[in-house]
Amino acid sequence: MVQIRVYYEDTDAGGIVYHSNYLNFCERARSEIFFKIGKNPMDENGHFVVRRVEADFLSSAKLGDILTVKTTLFESKKASCTLLQQIYKENELIFRATVNLAYIRDGKVVKIPQEKIDILATF
Amino acid sequence: MVQIRVYYEDTDAGGIVYHSNYLNFCERARSEIFFKIGKNPMDENGHFVVRRVEADFLSSAKLGDILTVKTTLFESKKASCTLLQQIYKENELIFRATVNLAYIRDGKVVKIPQEKIDILATF
Amino acid sequence: MVQIRVYYEDTDAGGIVYHSNYLNFCERARSEIFFKIGKNPMDENGHFVVRRVEADFLSSAKLGDILTVKTTLFESKKASCTLLQQIYKENELIFRATVNLAYIRDGKVVKIPQEKIDILATF
Amino acid sequence: MVQIRVYYEDTDAGGIVYHSNYLNFCERARSEIFFKIGKNPMDENGHFVVRRVEADFLSSAKLGDILTVKTTLFESKKASCTLLQQIYKENELIFRATVNLAYIRDGKVVKIPQEKIDILATF
Repeated sequence: MVQIRVYYEDTDAGGIVYHSNYLNFCERARSEIFFKIGKNPMDENGHFVVRRVEADFLSSAKLGDILTVKTTLFESKKASCTLLQQIYKENELIFRATVNLAYIRDGKVVKIPQEKIDILATF
Repeated sequence: MVQIRVYYEDTDAGGIVYHSNYLNFCERARSEIFFKIGKNPMDENGHFVVRRVEADFLSSAKLGDILTVKTTLFESKKASCTLLQQIYKENELIFRATVNLAYIRDGKVVKIPQEKIDILATF
Repeated sequence: MVQIRVYYEDTDAGGIVYHSNYLNFCERARSEIFFKIGKNPMDENGHFVVRRVEADFLSSAKLGDILTVKTTLFESKKASCTLLQQIYKENELIFRATVNLAYIRDGKVVKIPQEKIDILATF
Repeated sequence: MVQIRVYYEDTDAGGIVYHSNYLNFCERARSEIFFKIGKNPMDENGHFVVRRVEADFLSSAKLGDILTVKTTLFESKKASCTLLQQIYKENELIFRATVNLAYIRDGKVVKIPQEKIDILATF
């Protein structure tokens, strides 16, 4: 669970959070899983890439709101894993996405390092 | 068809375009449909919102690349419409999304103004 | 004092934080002064605007770093105020800016509301 | 001279372009000087970094505006150079900055490659 404050830079002229920023918030939450235990999601020559996203924008958030991102690993295969990420404003679910990730090393898709899957799974 | 140059701000430490920026590129392309004929996607008290995105990240782009965004309206209902948006790097399809849009006025979902649908359809 | 984690979205292909994002971090810190006491930097029809920035980029930050933003009001006039904002990576000063702000209401520069100056001054 | 359209992602809840994005627009203009002649501002192990910015935000821009960025090299030393960058909305100067750049190779400030200075100077 990661908490995120909505700042000016996150909003647009519609007065609410710009839609793609919810994906950024999800990425922060994924990365924070690693950072908070002193690890890094990125290796010297390897890093996660997003392969597919299905996202539902259920409600909106505005300047000053505090959002909570919940992340669950719900499928793990050799070459990819899928996370469910949900963003809440207080108790209201405002965004939900499934995010499919692969791992790239030297420009090629490789097996996701077991250590990284374990970190995502135990979170 | 909108052409977009990849600048530093679009990339991340992985050396490639940060994933959610492809959604920004798609939004630029949708807005440009209106701007280029002297119209605005946003009214005084109404604007489009993204309700659902299904996105496939097929390949990557890097600093200096020129990308082309192609947009097609493929479904139009009373309260929402769905666009297919494809991003090419030269002849290679690198990103593809279906983007479902609704129209909000004074915070409520309303019928999409016919003039706006017509603009999206004739594009 | 506001703490900020550096995420992928903040970095660029040079492997470090994209330069203008330090200004975003400073804006987060200014806004947080208001948010943390339950106030909003923005009124119904008024908000701060940045009029001038002098910024020194002294060192760099990378993915996963935790930065601390320190903000001090060092001049307050009727129609503008100037803040000193410093960003530290552990004990190292990596960015320093003076940020001159005015207050806009209905598109015109007005006297900064006394309540807002008081909040910035007591911080 | 580079032309830039203002899109939703560039604006904030104040209804105008978020202040730090003018620095992004300036960076796009600097990079485009290289891209448009088939060069890259970034080498394999070297790239420009911003060392100091003095920026005046003179007026604002909003969704759909077309901005023009003019860039002039006005000082060039061994280890740094300074550009004047001005952003116009039609004939109105809305932003002006001096941007001091250094060149970094393997994490260290080095002499700016002559080829890169020549490109900036002849522009």
